[in-house]
Amino acid sequence: MNIALGVEYSGSNYCGWQRQSHSPSVQQNLEQVLSQIANHPVSVFCAGRTDTGVHATGQVVNFELKSERPLKAWFLGANTLLPDDISITWAQQMPSDFHARHSAFSRRYRYVIQNTRHRSATLSGKVTWVRDKLDDSAMNLSAQALLGEQNFASFQASSCQSPTPFRFVEKVGVFRWHDYVIVDIAANAFLHHMVRNIVGTLLNVGTGKQSVDYVAEVLSRQDRTQAPETAKPDGLYLVDVGYPDEFSVPESSLGPLLLPDNLSTT
Amino acid sequence: MNIALGVEYSGSNYCGWQRQSHSPSVQQNLEQVLSQIANHPVSVFCAGRTDTGVHATGQVVNFELKSERPLKAWFLGANTLLPDDISITWAQQMPSDFHARHSAFSRRYRYVIQNTRHRSATLSGKVTWVRDKLDDSAMNLSAQALLGEQNFASFQASSCQSPTPFRFVEKVGVFRWHDYVIVDIAANAFLHHMVRNIVGTLLNVGTGKQSVDYVAEVLSRQDRTQAPETAKPDGLYLVDVGYPDEFSVPESSLGPLLLPDNLSTT
Repeated sequence: MNIALGVEYSGSNYCGWQRQSHSPSVQQNLEQVLSQIANHPVSVFCAGRTDTGVHATGQVVNFELKSERPLKAWFLGANTLLPDDISITWAQQMPSDFHARHSAFSRRYRYVIQNTRHRSATLSGKVTWVRDKLDDSAMNLSAQALLGEQNFASFQASSCQSPTPFRFVEKVGVFRWHDYVIVDIAANAFLHHMVRNIVGTLLNVGTGKQSVDYVAEVLSRQDRTQAPETAKPDGLYLVDVGYPDEFSVPESSLGPLLLPDNLSTT
Repeated sequence: MNIALGVEYSGSNYCGWQRQSHSPSVQQNLEQVLSQIANHPVSVFCAGRTDTGVHATGQVVNFELKSERPLKAWFLGANTLLPDDISITWAQQMPSDFHARHSAFSRRYRYVIQNTRHRSATLSGKVTWVRDKLDDSAMNLSAQALLGEQNFASFQASSCQSPTPFRFVEKVGVFRWHDYVIVDIAANAFLHHMVRNIVGTLLNVGTGKQSVDYVAEVLSRQDRTQAPETAKPDGLYLVDVGYPDEFSVPESSLGPLLLPDNLSTT
């Protein structure tokens, strides 16, 4: 049996999604609980391998189950056994050809910037704080240069193992939500650190250090060494993964943090 | 000099506001940092002494300063020295008769209930999870019985040291915000555990276990032993304190957690 799960987590206490020998990962915690319920070792595949400190409300995984278990064992059972900062949002049996990573045609991220004079104590680790007043309209205009299939080498970490720097950005928007500025971006897939490098560049536009043409300019350089610094992981959330309709993957709220699904400038 | 500060904190790692000998408190952490900046021991007075695990976006404190310091020492300096889960939102010099507790004529709390099938991993400790679908309209109607000056003995913890169970509730509303239900309540002051006991009672209405008359009924008993259980501290935030206009206390966003100041049912 092929089981898929929706997974939400706070990445602050983990070295990222992927299992590492030296420190706790989301994958390791999840596989341990699923193996306990399945009563055999379980390995999961995920839609997007998030970095240290990056969160998810819409991660999707699948795994092969050799024993028979009711679906609620994964939903209710796993949520009882998992640590507080990891939870299962849905569970569904899938056709054998469903693969959380290979079947996905898009990933969507939201990056939450707190734009106030003081850092937030109640959202520490969950948002990225920027003190300088940001021009969200300029950021939104500038970001539109990212749309379509392009060479994103300027936003690719040197550690990235992808054989190609080309990706297809389907949608990007920057919205002000009260004291917060949200970058919302969907692509077929992302290079390593791509969202955080894009946000780092957009922040230069938002603070007025660079003009609206800046994202297009950095993009055209196709050179990471000439692009601004990577934004912190704190505000980054994997909020959705797109699959073909035939798999009927359940929908859940994007969030994060009480944000409505449909954002518009307030 | 009499200095007032706005204070935001996440209560999860503290035994509450008040200094205790056995475990870390918000007060102890704050006084330690303020004493360091002032270069003499500082004792603060606060508007509302929150319990273990209860948060604040709008706490107000004041203290007597014997040395001269620019206001930004309290704002920027203290925010650098304080732990991530405590921050200063504003700093202002006050007339000598301002007292954070005695000058306050009202306190406002918001209680955030996550109303979904699964608990939230990204908001763990910051919201209270209720799985059963809540009828927020019934809760709102029921809550209106709390308005005005009344005997709140039914919602008073046995540990409460107040000489009188009378309080004046100025405003109360229950709102649905997407997957969340928010209880928003303001009173001249609150008894110990009063908000959490009210929320515990309202949850019985929201889940349909009790009718809309239930809050009025529990209130009229004037007996804590006949009222439902206390709701968890996780979702509770002190969001605002009211002072006479003459003190020109700065306003900040209520929040918490990206909630807009003006809530209406979505």
